[in-house]
Order: sequence, then C-alpha cells, then structure tokens
Amino acid sequence: MKAIILFGHGARDVRWREPFDRLAQLWRSQNANVPVELAFLEMMQPSLEEAVSALSLGGATQITVVPVFFGQGGHLRNDFPVLLDACRAKFPAIALSATPAVGEDLAVLQAIVDFGARAL
Amino acid sequence: MKAIILFGHGARDVRWREPFDRLAQLWRSQNANVPVELAFLEMMQPSLEEAVSALSLGGATQITVVPVFFGQGGHLRNDFPVLLDACRAKFPAIALSATPAVGEDLAVLQAIVDFGARAL
Repeated sequence: MKAIILFGHGARDVRWREPFDRLAQLWRSQNANVPVELAFLEMMQPSLEEAVSALSLGGATQITVVPVFFGQGGHLRNDFPVLLDACRAKFPAIALSATPAVGEDLAVLQAIVDFGARAL
Repeated sequence: MKAIILFGHGARDVRWREPFDRLAQLWRSQNANVPVELAFLEMMQPSLEEAVSALSLGGATQITVVPVFFGQGGHLRNDFPVLLDACRAKFPAIALSATPAVGEDLAVLQAIVDFGARAL
C-alpha cells in the first residue's frame, strides 16, 4: 500500500504548523486511499522515523516523502538523506523514496506568483 | 509606482536561494510593469531594508511584501513586523504593506498536494 509523508522543517511556535495540518487535510480529502502523515526535521513531532513507523503499522509498504521546503539547502542536501537512510535501515520492508523540494515545482512557484499578483 | 518584494528566510547554502531566483524570474516574465526584488530575513542578501531602498531608488512608491514562508511562526509574527516598521520609519514616502505567508494560500497548498499526487 502506498502512503505519503509531508516533511517540513518545524519551528518553536506551534502555530507554524497550521499550513501543514491544512495540507494534510487537503490531501486526505482528495486522496483518501493514500494515507498521509506529517513529519518534521526539528522542533516538532513526529520525526520522520515516527511517521514511517505509524504508516508501516497501518500497512504501508511504499512511502513517498515530499519535502515541503522552498529551497534545497543544507537541511535537504545533508540532514535529510541521513534521516532517510536511517529509516531505510530500520524499516527494510518499506520502499522509501523522496521527491525534490516542493519549491522546485513550477506549479508551486506559479501559485506563489499568482498570490503576489492578486495582493497588489 | 507599485513594486513587490518576495521575502524569504535565507540559508547558509547559497543553492537554497535557487527557487527564489526562479520565482523572481517568473514574476518578471509575467508582471514586467511591477518591479520585483528578493529579500531575506537572515544569512542572505539583500535585507528587507536594502530591497526597499533599491525599489525606492527605482521609483517605487507602493511596495507589497510577500513572505515566502509556509508557516507564520516566530519569524513572521515577531521579527518581520519589527523589520517592516523600521523600513516604514526609514522610507516614510513609501506605502509598505505585507500579505500573509504564502503557505496561508489555498492555491499554493493545492499545488503542493498536486505535486505529491503526481509523485506517487
């Protein structure tokens, strides 16, 4: 069974995660057959490993991790592959893949440009 | 004259800014009559004040700042208003306004969900 993890940076301010919760709700309303979990690099729970564990317990066998980051900086280039490899070692029965950061997607960038244009 | 600033967090890794450069290019290709500058909270140049200064020298009188952040955490709730007010004090002839974070926009969230769905 396929599943998805929306992976964000995390922040001290709990309200920072509101758009992530909204993202997960949106996902559930449109892709009810593909379980989704949020996961955070730091300062927020669950961790990537906890999210993989939860989806695995729910029956997931193929998990795609989507980094909800604009840029591919040190976190995604250095920290994220280490976390992914640790999860692969801990959950060998799960096929774990990752997409580029959402900020690499032209449609995401276009939505941001449109938002700015509407605000003028 | 209206202008826009796309305001990001900034990072140590210079490649982190690539999607921001792409955003600015996309803006220029679609809104050539509205000058755009990037600005960063920390670790990258220019600062918000430098971006306002550059646009002001170019003739801008109304500047909209779009926070290219997912969540409204401490940076946007605390640091950003202070920076905005400092710019207003330094450039009293400029009407400076700000939008919510782009992560508050449903179309941006939908583009992220679509990106994830295509990746499965």
